[in-house]
Amino acid sequence: MKLRESAKGRIRCGEMGENRLINQITARLKPRADVIVGPGDDCAVVAAPNNGRPLLLKTDCVVERVHFQPNDKPSSVGWKAMARTLSDFAAMAGLPQFALVTLVVPADCETRWVKEIYRGLHRAADRFAVAIVGGETSRTDGPAMVSVAMVGTVEEGQWVSRAGGKVGDALFVTGRLGGSVGGKHLNFTPRIAEALWLSANFSVHAMMDLSDGLGADLPRLAAASGVGFAIEEKALPRTRGCSVDAAIHDGEDYELLVAIAPNDASSLQAKWRRKFSGLALTRIGVLLPAAGFELPRSFHGYVHFQ
Amino acid sequence: MKLRESAKGRIRCGEMGENRLINQITARLKPRADVIVGPGDDCAVVAAPNNGRPLLLKTDCVVERVHFQPNDKPSSVGWKAMARTLSDFAAMAGLPQFALVTLVVPADCETRWVKEIYRGLHRAADRFAVAIVGGETSRTDGPAMVSVAMVGTVEEGQWVSRAGGKVGDALFVTGRLGGSVGGKHLNFTPRIAEALWLSANFSVHAMMDLSDGLGADLPRLAAASGVGFAIEEKALPRTRGCSVDAAIHDGEDYELLVAIAPNDASSLQAKWRRKFSGLALTRIGVLLPAAGFELPRSFHGYVHFQ
Repeated sequence: MKLRESAKGRIRCGEMGENRLINQITARLKPRADVIVGPGDDCAVVAAPNNGRPLLLKTDCVVERVHFQPNDKPSSVGWKAMARTLSDFAAMAGLPQFALVTLVVPADCETRWVKEIYRGLHRAADRFAVAIVGGETSRTDGPAMVSVAMVGTVEEGQWVSRAGGKVGDALFVTGRLGGSVGGKHLNFTPRIAEALWLSANFSVHAMMDLSDGLGADLPRLAAASGVGFAIEEKALPRTRGCSVDAAIHDGEDYELLVAIAPNDASSLQAKWRRKFSGLALTRIGVLLPAAGFELPRSFHGYVHFQ
Repeated sequence: MKLRESAKGRIRCGEMGENRLINQITARLKPRADVIVGPGDDCAVVAAPNNGRPLLLKTDCVVERVHFQPNDKPSSVGWKAMARTLSDFAAMAGLPQFALVTLVVPADCETRWVKEIYRGLHRAADRFAVAIVGGETSRTDGPAMVSVAMVGTVEEGQWVSRAGGKVGDALFVTGRLGGSVGGKHLNFTPRIAEALWLSANFSVHAMMDLSDGLGADLPRLAAASGVGFAIEEKALPRTRGCSVDAAIHDGEDYELLVAIAPNDASSLQAKWRRKFSGLALTRIGVLLPAAGFELPRSFHGYVHFQ
């Protein structure tokens, strides 16, 4: 098949067979000992994790005009698609290993755009030692979408759910909250290393990543743990120029929210500063009994479908 | 949150938080010993497969107005979304175990439609003993999309790729080809049991599922195996009322294409008839040396992005 090129030298996806596009994109994949069959066959075949460790599984997606805009840098969109799923692995203190990519694009989308999307996907995957082992592409007559499914592992008994929070736990968040739409939502760093270090060295009772904003996500952690909570609004680490309201409700922070045993809380911050000097870790509140707690303000937050 | 209902009693997804919808949908999931953490946390946690077997990974999707139409029965669309990925597992002689669902729907889509989609997803998953362990939902201002990522396993050395075909192998297909758009594309049965039986009992050198039609898929198997092929057009098992051309090019058959050692080929069909009496297995051709083979006709087939 000879590709037609327009006067401007642009190639549209519709002018290029799926096979050829996927082949071009996956040609740069590096061989890895734990990848037995990579992209190009009906399924990927990978080595099972050692020692009978449990598997961690997660899928997430970004949709055009919802999670990114048509004129956003496509490599940043690819980064975000991979990093969102990585952030869910961080939330469980998991170790990501393999990713599958589903790309849905209009037929008139430029192949260069698709390649830039994959460049961002690869950049994020490489940064966290994840192998992209499969990809599926479909056309659509609507907005573009990138979905990333990830498989990894976790030490037996080492994973952290949302449900283990206990009354009296200290609540911490990494980084600064609010204002993500200014750019951070496209180039944030999943807190994988930080989560692994926290769960290996402290009694982390519950953890999640802040994707919908503290105002939506903290009530979820509390509900899953069967507890209430109180936040010191003045303690909230805010992005420069952000109000308390923005820090609570903007969403897409992709920082960790951590509930930790009160005995561990006092020593945590000094050790954290020595280990992760460039990133804030801030004590923002406490878990309380489920009944009788008071919300610091109207915690309506960001809800999908609104 | 109180749901508003319209005069007709319909609830739109936009009137219902993502949490609540997902909670309603996943409430019916049955507990399974190998599912440690199911839907509702940041990731799913599942038991790793026994005996250090390799993992099989695959993702696929169906897009509205591409793989299904707006007025198709939503439970059939859900079935198709799950069955397409299952069919890829069949193609490798794999054993599917866990599925993650990504659902992208417009805010004005009815929650009843989403629940019917999930009913179909569950029906297909239950039929093949697959646990749906996670789901992600996003809104869109475009067409709906359902993506299914699947994790499973396969006996060491038992999986079958597209790349193992040898000159002289007999080519077989299951079922009948062509005319899938008449309905089969929504309610086909993934050939999981048939593939496991074939790979356990015969020298299956290469296998794939026919998703884009024999005319597009057989050249892929041949190319991956570095061989050519010849097909006896008159031998092709056609759906009633379908031409040879339709059998070759319609696509979405989701039948198995199998390359098998010639010594095994003679005994195969009698044994097959005793095991799978309701399903045809037809010898349609042979693998040839890569150079000098002749295509039976213009093998352009169905290519995505066209």
